[in-house]
Amino acid sequence: MSKNISISVIKRLPRYYRFLERLKAAGLVRISSSELASKMGLTASQIRQDFNCFGGFGQQGYGYNIEQLHKEIGTILGVGNLRKAIIIGAGNLGRALAAHVRFESKGFSLIGIFDKKESMAGQLVGNFPVRHIDGLDEFCRGLHPDIAVLCVPEDQAGIVGKQLIRLGIKGIWNFSHFDFAAEGISIPVENVHLGDSLMTLCYRVNRED
Amino acid sequence: MSKNISISVIKRLPRYYRFLERLKAAGLVRISSSELASKMGLTASQIRQDFNCFGGFGQQGYGYNIEQLHKEIGTILGVGNLRKAIIIGAGNLGRALAAHVRFESKGFSLIGIFDKKESMAGQLVGNFPVRHIDGLDEFCRGLHPDIAVLCVPEDQAGIVGKQLIRLGIKGIWNFSHFDFAAEGISIPVENVHLGDSLMTLCYRVNRED
Repeated sequence: MSKNISISVIKRLPRYYRFLERLKAAGLVRISSSELASKMGLTASQIRQDFNCFGGFGQQGYGYNIEQLHKEIGTILGVGNLRKAIIIGAGNLGRALAAHVRFESKGFSLIGIFDKKESMAGQLVGNFPVRHIDGLDEFCRGLHPDIAVLCVPEDQAGIVGKQLIRLGIKGIWNFSHFDFAAEGISIPVENVHLGDSLMTLCYRVNRED
Repeated sequence: MSKNISISVIKRLPRYYRFLERLKAAGLVRISSSELASKMGLTASQIRQDFNCFGGFGQQGYGYNIEQLHKEIGTILGVGNLRKAIIIGAGNLGRALAAHVRFESKGFSLIGIFDKKESMAGQLVGNFPVRHIDGLDEFCRGLHPDIAVLCVPEDQAGIVGKQLIRLGIKGIWNFSHFDFAAEGISIPVENVHLGDSLMTLCYRVNRED
């Protein structure tokens, strides 16, 4: 399996994984690339090309075994490893992510949530008491979380992000507008720039008129 | 100005807009494409190419006037139009978006939030009482919201999405996993697939080890 798969292929894998999960749940056993393509709004050749990056999963003329394909894509994504995640920032967004995101089915186990507000410390978010950010160093040295979900304002994100990297964090799910790429940070950072997405919609809606 | 600007250029505009906003706030007046490039982790030629799609904004050798460039990109994005937005689904995520997202600075004015739970009707989310979904038709016929923020489970998203399109909605900010593209829906839909983003991070973190 090649290590140099383009990021655009990688970004499509979770969508394949979701669709296959649904087909599996519906009790289907096999699917051809053209059937899968029509369900996903793609072309069959795109799908075959994508799967070929990982060595292909199908037998010519037979289609794909859904359960096996789902499992193999899950293995490629590494969702079974359950790496440890912490949330930094227990405001509206941090709390909503803790409650809404099914971390366990995406390869992570949530193990803590932090905030710098003294008044929040001890409050329950789901099953977790909010911890004060002053305890972050000790927590990380003891439990070695793998990724951090950053839900803090931009002016704090850079400082806490660098602290986390020093503490051995391996990836950041970044909801702040702090631009790690522009700062030359080299660990994996997945940005969810909600505002950018909304502005893109703004553009598209205005163009349609 | 061409109508056929590639979506990848469009998707970069909000980021330019954010950076310029920051430079403006810091009191800077002019910036060259190479300075802007180094701040954003891009190349100067990429920036010039992007801006040329919209007729270019700079004078050779002078750099860009930050305030003017910020304003022009804002005009292209249409952020000054303040189109009307509603949120469907007042669970954790819907509430967090209502509180966290600065709609007004992204081209939208939030005018209502709906849920199908009777028990939620009347509860305040920010300044809005949650409305029962049964009142959606009447509300839309009276107030003509432009976009809907979909924060409902996948199995409800298709039904309510189609209802909204019948009611004249012009765009969807989709937080559900319902796949509008695969259903041949033609109005603009911006998907925020949080789970896909987290799984991409999962892949990248596992590859780094």
